[in-house]
Amino acid sequence: MSSPMRIGIAGLGTVGIGVVKLIRKHARDLERRSGRKVEIVAVSARNRKKVRGIVLSGYEWVKDPLDLVNNPDIDVIVELIGGSEGVARDLVTAALMAGKHVVTANKALLAHHGHELALLADKQKVSLCFEAAVAGGIPAIKALREGFAANDIQAVRGILNGTCNYILTNMRESGRDFRDVLKEAQAKGYAEANPAFDVDGIDAAHKLALLTALAFGIKPDMDSLETTGIRHITASDIAHATELGYRIKLLGLCRREGTRLIQSVEPCLVPEQSALGGVEGVLNAVQVRGDFVGQGWLVGRGAGEGPTASAVVADLIDIARGHRVPVFGIPARQMKVGNFASTDILEGHFYMHVVVRDQPGVLAQIAAILRDHKVSVEAVLQRGRDPGKPVSIVMTTHKVKQADMRRAASKISGLSLVKGKPCLMRIEQD
Amino acid sequence: MSSPMRIGIAGLGTVGIGVVKLIRKHARDLERRSGRKVEIVAVSARNRKKVRGIVLSGYEWVKDPLDLVNNPDIDVIVELIGGSEGVARDLVTAALMAGKHVVTANKALLAHHGHELALLADKQKVSLCFEAAVAGGIPAIKALREGFAANDIQAVRGILNGTCNYILTNMRESGRDFRDVLKEAQAKGYAEANPAFDVDGIDAAHKLALLTALAFGIKPDMDSLETTGIRHITASDIAHATELGYRIKLLGLCRREGTRLIQSVEPCLVPEQSALGGVEGVLNAVQVRGDFVGQGWLVGRGAGEGPTASAVVADLIDIARGHRVPVFGIPARQMKVGNFASTDILEGHFYMHVVVRDQPGVLAQIAAILRDHKVSVEAVLQRGRDPGKPVSIVMTTHKVKQADMRRAASKISGLSLVKGKPCLMRIEQD
Repeated sequence: MSSPMRIGIAGLGTVGIGVVKLIRKHARDLERRSGRKVEIVAVSARNRKKVRGIVLSGYEWVKDPLDLVNNPDIDVIVELIGGSEGVARDLVTAALMAGKHVVTANKALLAHHGHELALLADKQKVSLCFEAAVAGGIPAIKALREGFAANDIQAVRGILNGTCNYILTNMRESGRDFRDVLKEAQAKGYAEANPAFDVDGIDAAHKLALLTALAFGIKPDMDSLETTGIRHITASDIAHATELGYRIKLLGLCRREGTRLIQSVEPCLVPEQSALGGVEGVLNAVQVRGDFVGQGWLVGRGAGEGPTASAVVADLIDIARGHRVPVFGIPARQMKVGNFASTDILEGHFYMHVVVRDQPGVLAQIAAILRDHKVSVEAVLQRGRDPGKPVSIVMTTHKVKQADMRRAASKISGLSLVKGKPCLMRIEQD
Repeated sequence: MSSPMRIGIAGLGTVGIGVVKLIRKHARDLERRSGRKVEIVAVSARNRKKVRGIVLSGYEWVKDPLDLVNNPDIDVIVELIGGSEGVARDLVTAALMAGKHVVTANKALLAHHGHELALLADKQKVSLCFEAAVAGGIPAIKALREGFAANDIQAVRGILNGTCNYILTNMRESGRDFRDVLKEAQAKGYAEANPAFDVDGIDAAHKLALLTALAFGIKPDMDSLETTGIRHITASDIAHATELGYRIKLLGLCRREGTRLIQSVEPCLVPEQSALGGVEGVLNAVQVRGDFVGQGWLVGRGAGEGPTASAVVADLIDIARGHRVPVFGIPARQMKVGNFASTDILEGHFYMHVVVRDQPGVLAQIAAILRDHKVSVEAVLQRGRDPGKPVSIVMTTHKVKQADMRRAASKISGLSLVKGKPCLMRIEQD
């Protein structure tokens, strides 16, 4: 029997407490599976007095998380503080420098500093694992880094933010507007008091940057990532999409387009009956297309105490088993800068919703603009024929270049009879 | 840079050729990902003259696959011969004895001799990997052995045979009967000339036995596995299930029930909108429920050259990376004999389809039998009111013990007005 693997945990929020509970509950199984005892040596959090519902007196309490690094009894640091800078970054850097393995759930940190940290981990010959950073309980990182490693990956798509998926699902089921549903989600604890990180797509973008890096062997690159959130989606968009047989999902997407890559986070329409169309509520999904494996996908709970702790401890088991894989699947010094293009080069069918004043000629004006931009209309729905009241015009298009579609929508937006900005979303087929 | 990893491939059918193609096409990527060159040294197959569509002259051709073991230049044996006995078993045993790693797609071999081979692999400190044996391109073995390793697994359910799923999907879409669709599947190459292995559930049972072993840390046990195929499913069963909002799937299922385990392969009804209900055609799926992670599932192509080769080479990359995990996730000597119970102890809702002669009193007779067995009916459909012609009675039940339901069905089967055997299937909720 090998010596125990001794860990220090920094951050005792929901996930940290989940990790402690899991390691305690499954101590014997973890030992069987990893061939070593997994022991918590010390813990650290900002507030020692906070009521956490579990007894922590068996572990050394460390005020400054950096002291975990200095403790020679600790082999692995579990970083659950969060944030791309500050304590979390200092801690992970110091731990790697000290030759300790690191397990983290910190997507922001890795999305911004992943390559530099991977270089350090390689140099020190230690693991930097982040299964918990993307899609919680779903072993998506492992799938891309190992399970699908024999493939040339062509595309990855994911529903990566449970809060947004919960809000969009709830809007569809209840017919209510974004603000209403967001408020309820906040009351229930499914959304933060400041929801920007989730509903503006930033959280999903951090996760996508990591998936892109893994899929294509490139450095995580937040700057080349176009991000659109879901605040502008209205109850009527949801209703129209449903009527057309689609569901609206905030999709993270990275894809090879010729010699270039595109990556974006944006709400899209997906067919109701498709793999991603059926992923509802707080569930997350990651779909991968590889040249040999074809299309495969993984679905599960993306957040919360249990699923995230499950992912953190899976990483710990890997480390205990002596399983060391480069952080992003290839040696960090071989990771290239991605050759990214704007999503303007994508081709696809589109959904567009325009609210207009109901006057003769408005449809003709819109149609003329579409024609001038080579946009061919597939179907039109017109709603709300209350004289004098605004009217919704909803259309889907045949295949068109995203750049042309955007230009057309922008022109349409400038028409005097058009109220507000048209809502434009790409339709993503399976 | 480490020394190359040198492999010998035994069996050059669809999968073997796929592996050769993949290793050639992605040589550079495999080297980047595993840190070593992956080189094919020698190959072996029964018929050297068979046209295989690729050039094999660069590899040593070995007539007797056992000679691959004697070749000191070979580090890893890839066994793609198949079958639970004979050459495949001899080859894998000899390879492990010689201290060579083994990658295999052979579910039958591992379902029958998995424990004994795992003991040998542990003793020799080599890997015995079988990702390709279950659900082809889906990294289900890795997910259970590593991704979900922090959990107490409560249940695994899977759609594990693409041929059956293709036939059932096609029956639903076309309204045709089993025999018709099977014939077409055979003509298209989706089903073997002798389809028994697939349609009688044996192939799915082999795969399930491996998932059960991984999930619960027990020895693969084909003897405790109740297996029912899909030959008896009629077009009208499919139509009734569809009308009730369900789809019929051949499910492999293992589950903790108190201190005991059950495992079975049998056709079940699943809600059309559920995770498994949406898995159609040749797709496979594996759904796992763990105490921390909750429910998660993986979907993808279960067979064919590309997906299976992808799985074989993923195992090769793991070995090249030096990743060694016990064959079934825990040391083989710690694997116990499973404490299995019959599926009779399961409780569930049931679907029953009885064909009767249309005479007064038949429904009363059936109802009386159900009452005597404590089976409470939820819904009844009666069809085919052509005087003198047989009538279909379809019912779904409230929750009832499978043993009681089976006894009732068997009694009903004995009624003189009942034609043939009632078709009884459990309804599996998410």
